[in-house]
Amino acid sequence: MKKRSPPIHYPMPFTRIELAVLSIIDGRLAVLLGRRAQEPHAGKWALPGGVLRIDLDADLESAAQRVANERLGVTLPYLRLLTTVGSAGRDSRAPWALSIAYRALIPIDAIDPQAGKRLDELRWVSADEAAQDRTLAFDHADLIRVAAETTRGDIERLDLPFGFLPERFTLGELQACCEAILGRSLDKSSFRRRIDERGLLEPVPGEMRTGAFRPAQLFCRGR
Amino acid sequence: MKKRSPPIHYPMPFTRIELAVLSIIDGRLAVLLGRRAQEPHAGKWALPGGVLRIDLDADLESAAQRVANERLGVTLPYLRLLTTVGSAGRDSRAPWALSIAYRALIPIDAIDPQAGKRLDELRWVSADEAAQDRTLAFDHADLIRVAAETTRGDIERLDLPFGFLPERFTLGELQACCEAILGRSLDKSSFRRRIDERGLLEPVPGEMRTGAFRPAQLFCRGR
Repeated sequence: MKKRSPPIHYPMPFTRIELAVLSIIDGRLAVLLGRRAQEPHAGKWALPGGVLRIDLDADLESAAQRVANERLGVTLPYLRLLTTVGSAGRDSRAPWALSIAYRALIPIDAIDPQAGKRLDELRWVSADEAAQDRTLAFDHADLIRVAAETTRGDIERLDLPFGFLPERFTLGELQACCEAILGRSLDKSSFRRRIDERGLLEPVPGEMRTGAFRPAQLFCRGR
Repeated sequence: MKKRSPPIHYPMPFTRIELAVLSIIDGRLAVLLGRRAQEPHAGKWALPGGVLRIDLDADLESAAQRVANERLGVTLPYLRLLTTVGSAGRDSRAPWALSIAYRALIPIDAIDPQAGKRLDELRWVSADEAAQDRTLAFDHADLIRVAAETTRGDIERLDLPFGFLPERFTLGELQACCEAILGRSLDKSSFRRRIDERGLLEPVPGEMRTGAFRPAQLFCRGR
């Protein structure tokens, strides 16, 4: 007979999901903030988020997508675990609060600013400014700093930001996107050589971007 | 007057800390496993871990160090958040279980195999074999796979494994350590050039390793 597991007698942490949704706006890395409609921190700007509902969510990833649907009206592609923080005193609703933060990279037009539920308002702000903004709710400025650093680290090791790009793009568009994330220029020839060496992209046969400049080959994510 | 935060009515997840403690043994990446003394999975091998105690632990990092002290009799340097997993049905003690996994890199002699509390026995096993071992408790084989991949990713981008090394080491010892983690040889000249370019190490003035071979300069972590 299978032994029964011993019962658990310890109090458990108040557990939330937070979403660091990033995009590129005006050539800079930006993060989506929601203005909190409820206490604590009512009226302050924060990452969109919600309570983990073990009665509703099969797993953490499902919880993050449920929160994205409720707060932002979308399912988020390229959703990745960012970090987990937890301590006594983080949230006045409970003695001990845990936040599991996810990160998503999206094109700016993927979110309808009117979609927020239980958020008065949504807005995009510079990720670097938000990371320094001590008026944000909770420790969300710190989470935004980690999200920006992680996203820049991805670029440094050529984990390319396909979440920010259309399905087909030119090498110039890709480089501009990476430069916007990093906040600095990249050397064109060494950038192209590194991408080429690793076989990260595939040309789309016969597809060129035409316009004011000479036609440019279109690429998509390599398989 | 400050508004009171609304009370919370939702059940919260059973929350544990798991420790993926890694070292290099016989030239290969190894992970420390403990044999479980209690149900569930009594008698099976698992990552050492314990319940998050919000009545004892100030924050997650403190919780991880408390678990390390209780289970392994040590405080772990280079302890880093690895990943967080959670779902219904992961652990028979609760309807929904969350595990926050930490990763530590240590020299093999830092752990006394007799120190384990509430573990029948501790042993080091090949990380790659453990990652494939479906007899391990819970989803710990998956956590070990992520720990090995993350540690290899660190080396690929020259986040050097100082946790595995003595304070002073030769370039040959460093390269052997990186090769053991990666499970493959590295080109000596390009490895040294990359480390040099980034200023990751500092020579210890006047300190050389002498022995059977010609004397080798000793280095330490760069500031």
